[in-house]
Amino acid sequence: MIEKTIEKIKPIDALWSAKARQRVDNLIKPVGSMGKLEDYYVQLSAIQKTLSPSADKRAVVVFSGDHGVIEEDVAVCPQAVTLQQTENFVRGYTGVCAIAKQAGAKLFPVDVAVNGEVKLSGVIDRKLAYGCDNIFKGPAMTRQRAIAAIEIGIDVVSDVVKQGYNLLATGEMGICNTTPSAAILAVLTGLDAAEVTGMGANLDDERVRHKIEVVRGAIAVNQPDKTDVIDIISKVGGYEIAAMTGAFLGAAAAGVAIVVDGFIATVAALLAVQLAPATKDYLIASHKSYEKGAAIATAQLGLEPPLDMAMRLGEGSGAALMFNIVDAACYMGKEMITFDEAGIGVV
Amino acid sequence: MIEKTIEKIKPIDALWSAKARQRVDNLIKPVGSMGKLEDYYVQLSAIQKTLSPSADKRAVVVFSGDHGVIEEDVAVCPQAVTLQQTENFVRGYTGVCAIAKQAGAKLFPVDVAVNGEVKLSGVIDRKLAYGCDNIFKGPAMTRQRAIAAIEIGIDVVSDVVKQGYNLLATGEMGICNTTPSAAILAVLTGLDAAEVTGMGANLDDERVRHKIEVVRGAIAVNQPDKTDVIDIISKVGGYEIAAMTGAFLGAAAAGVAIVVDGFIATVAALLAVQLAPATKDYLIASHKSYEKGAAIATAQLGLEPPLDMAMRLGEGSGAALMFNIVDAACYMGKEMITFDEAGIGVV
Repeated sequence: MIEKTIEKIKPIDALWSAKARQRVDNLIKPVGSMGKLEDYYVQLSAIQKTLSPSADKRAVVVFSGDHGVIEEDVAVCPQAVTLQQTENFVRGYTGVCAIAKQAGAKLFPVDVAVNGEVKLSGVIDRKLAYGCDNIFKGPAMTRQRAIAAIEIGIDVVSDVVKQGYNLLATGEMGICNTTPSAAILAVLTGLDAAEVTGMGANLDDERVRHKIEVVRGAIAVNQPDKTDVIDIISKVGGYEIAAMTGAFLGAAAAGVAIVVDGFIATVAALLAVQLAPATKDYLIASHKSYEKGAAIATAQLGLEPPLDMAMRLGEGSGAALMFNIVDAACYMGKEMITFDEAGIGVV
Repeated sequence: MIEKTIEKIKPIDALWSAKARQRVDNLIKPVGSMGKLEDYYVQLSAIQKTLSPSADKRAVVVFSGDHGVIEEDVAVCPQAVTLQQTENFVRGYTGVCAIAKQAGAKLFPVDVAVNGEVKLSGVIDRKLAYGCDNIFKGPAMTRQRAIAAIEIGIDVVSDVVKQGYNLLATGEMGICNTTPSAAILAVLTGLDAAEVTGMGANLDDERVRHKIEVVRGAIAVNQPDKTDVIDIISKVGGYEIAAMTGAFLGAAAAGVAIVVDGFIATVAALLAVQLAPATKDYLIASHKSYEKGAAIATAQLGLEPPLDMAMRLGEGSGAALMFNIVDAACYMGKEMITFDEAGIGVV
């Protein structure tokens, strides 16, 4: 299924890009003066193969999973919070719920590997496990499970696209998942754990130093192969991270733009782009997360997030803030007129 | 009228700030993890004196005026574009129109000093002149006119607030108005014209060098007193810039938050804060304009714009992009629950 999905991912249409750029350059404004809005317009036009792209049906797909590495004391809050917050996604109480509601976006919470029973309907049940294993001691999961988790991401996004959503974002909930994310980024970049490991949900400096040792240890114990995404995920990853990787692949395969959230999502996007480079054409960056490592992950991906909100919440919250901005780019394309249409000279 | 307005501008309520900060720190998320959204929530709570602030009725007030300094060949496009674009604000064709429409915001175009007759109804007629004089040769306007232009800004915003708008932004249209803005900023900061003068609407390097000479000359000829805002405006300013200064004062006096656009608006905000320092409490920064000088103006104002959109259009377009983000901060305050309410431990 992953290979079939990868085969479907094509670079965006150069002809439509060129047509859209020509239109945007002729709108009544100085060339280039609407900056990244122009780029989003061109990107969406090429993805949707139209000069009037839409971003009016928006969804955030949030994957939840737990992590055995919590045993190593790398989180300030108990694992039970993953379950509680997953249920709170349905209740509408969390950060991403508020932002998604403002943006008129639908939230799809998905249980991939919560360590507990989700009792509320409204959470999509795709549970593969009750959390992954402790990466400080061995692999997070089997290779087979890593593949299955990626496929869940592909599958859920495919369902969401079938419901007509034309702009997606993905996020996650998983207590201590900045630890595997830092490990993945260290593997991908070859950087030392100290350069990519941050405070997560407010660890103090001493505990960050400990977390760095855990990340370093996880890599040393597992020796992931940086050229093999499945190997990386199965050894130092996590279920919800794998599912996000699948979500990016699934969106690109379905020809729908998908907004990348902060640190963890960006790491998942890096894995997706390593599997299928053309996935990048479908990604839209959102915010410069304040989690350490986020800037490195973003630079590695080659995207420039336009939002500098000092946020580091996860859940897809930063990505959901982009929906209205991308929509504004669509409005720019639809509402503005060209110099010819206006009958005026160059502005 | 200016003095009466200044008297009304009070620092925002510290008690409400503290209450709002306490609430935001107890929402179910790591403390501080929603970054600037938390700050906007606290600011709006204090301004509106409630823990459920609103940003649901939004308006952009755009002031248009022309500039005699266009004689010095500092613009790529003809002066007539100011008039055409002012009418296009009513038609809904310009950049800010598209962004405001996406955000459900009402646009109020105001003719303060367009060099021509605005024929469309829908533009608020507060015309003081057919453009200001050439600042390269002498003052832009009399001291009396500068005061009248500021009062127009105060007055228009006061009317808008009476219509129930609870989140404002201000912008401008005036061909070559980056020239007086650079001159004002040079006067306020003591920096050389070369450090604050940019390409405006796509001047090439040679013409930017010429524009720098014009800015330098305008200051040398007029010798504005940097401690006297009215003197600065009357000597090297412009009508729409003065009106924006009034708009910031008027919003602060009325107790309504107002979003600052890019370079020109930020310069106008600096003038407002020099007249009444507490005005700053009502300002919300928007984007890092790519016009040279914008970063200096923003640093001088002490604000950190969260949007890095590579925009440099003016019209209030960058400010209008902030409406949904500020609204998201309000949603955060309303939709999210506290740890006590959720019955869970620290996240």
